[in-house]
Amino acid sequence: MKLNLDADIDLAQRLADAAGAAIRPFFRSGVASERKEDASPVTLADQAAEEAMRAILRVERPDDTIIGEEYGITAGTSGRSWVLDPIDGTAGFLAGRAIFGTLIALVIEGWPVLGVIDQPIAGERWVGASGRKTTFNGQPVSTRRCRELSDATIATTGPHYFSDHEGEHFMGLAAKTDYRRMVMGGDCYNYAMLASGHLDIVCEAGLKLHDWAALVPVVEGAGGLMCDWNGDPLHAGSTGHVLALGDPARQDDAVEALACNHDHQHGHHHEH
Amino acid sequence: MKLNLDADIDLAQRLADAAGAAIRPFFRSGVASERKEDASPVTLADQAAEEAMRAILRVERPDDTIIGEEYGITAGTSGRSWVLDPIDGTAGFLAGRAIFGTLIALVIEGWPVLGVIDQPIAGERWVGASGRKTTFNGQPVSTRRCRELSDATIATTGPHYFSDHEGEHFMGLAAKTDYRRMVMGGDCYNYAMLASGHLDIVCEAGLKLHDWAALVPVVEGAGGLMCDWNGDPLHAGSTGHVLALGDPARQDDAVEALACNHDHQHGHHHEH
Repeated sequence: MKLNLDADIDLAQRLADAAGAAIRPFFRSGVASERKEDASPVTLADQAAEEAMRAILRVERPDDTIIGEEYGITAGTSGRSWVLDPIDGTAGFLAGRAIFGTLIALVIEGWPVLGVIDQPIAGERWVGASGRKTTFNGQPVSTRRCRELSDATIATTGPHYFSDHEGEHFMGLAAKTDYRRMVMGGDCYNYAMLASGHLDIVCEAGLKLHDWAALVPVVEGAGGLMCDWNGDPLHAGSTGHVLALGDPARQDDAVEALACNHDHQHGHHHEH
Repeated sequence: MKLNLDADIDLAQRLADAAGAAIRPFFRSGVASERKEDASPVTLADQAAEEAMRAILRVERPDDTIIGEEYGITAGTSGRSWVLDPIDGTAGFLAGRAIFGTLIALVIEGWPVLGVIDQPIAGERWVGASGRKTTFNGQPVSTRRCRELSDATIATTGPHYFSDHEGEHFMGLAAKTDYRRMVMGGDCYNYAMLASGHLDIVCEAGLKLHDWAALVPVVEGAGGLMCDWNGDPLHAGSTGHVLALGDPARQDDAVEALACNHDHQHGHHHEH
């Protein structure tokens, strides 16, 4: 099993290399972008990167399932699934920010066992796998301790990704953290920063399997914990309500705070 | 006057160099950070960078006023003010994101005539000055055209920087843009991306002079426009309600939309 995991980690890195090479020419290129039916942003880079990864998988893992954000499911027979999100954070990508990421996960029986978060512009890569220490550009990284919820820095991509109801629950948690340090935007990059010890909590809703599968091995291999908003482990059947904690000791506090519905949308007024 | 502006641009670049050298060792260093009385985030990097810039100004422009985010006002006699924000986007900096910026402005009679936005980790610098074409790392940049408000991509640092009332007005504008591409976070970096043609509108409230003075020459030298929420030019006495437009032709639409109070906080539900 160890040898197989090594081979899969090596393959995942080659997938990330291929995706990055496909993406870089499009960053800040001003290329016209299409829209999907649901009007979420998508670029030619997204498609080129997923095609590049699929081409490698077709040759090297012909029996594995591929689940891609752009091109859907290609069923395999092995019980193993490669879950690909070529550009997580497309809105940020289009806005010229090098904090989007390519997400690559290996999922077995619905559980992610290997994850890569790759930022191809800055040349940053986090690799996590079951039973392994998460690495950032080859060096081990660790989440940081967080003694109290009130010390925690929280991140989320934006309130516009929550329904009203979800937003109220999010605020129940956010209001108990060090709210003045809260950061918005960031997508998968927030989970990478949590793995590297720069954030304490990331909380989001509406994530699909390809948005979160790669994050779990990265965060947990760095000492953190990922779960749904009820505190249950994330599985392929999860609802997409995702909570990441740098310090697993804060899980109960965070889940309890999320369960409260505070119904205040703009509770504090910050200074820049 | 032209020769003087050249000398000031050269000086501003040396200030940015000094600030960047002071900041880089602290990025992702995990250094403990203090809190101000108002609890906004501040780091040792912030202070070291402002000290480095002030040391240069004391020698090279002893008669000019210095207005710094960290150390306040040092009055001069020349009628010229150097306005410094060593790290704009401290929360983002602390969260490990290389999209914060050092802001340097020269303000004369309350009007910014020269601005630098410097990102010292990625090595990105925007320089704008009255009557000059804005440059990014020495190359000229331009904002992009935006034919309709509904085509516009809007950015803001986060809803937690608005009062309830301001947030409602912001939503009046945001709801008329291409809302699904809206990005949160980013601070000064959003204005830099607008200058480079990757965003159409940035809208914020609560900005102080040191937050916005450097942005005006950068945005306007790239073909954009900056004003307050009423459409009036930004002056040292402005209220801190800031609107930046890549395409000046969209000013009237944007100001009109901002004047409407839509009172919906989470109008749409996005996909990641």
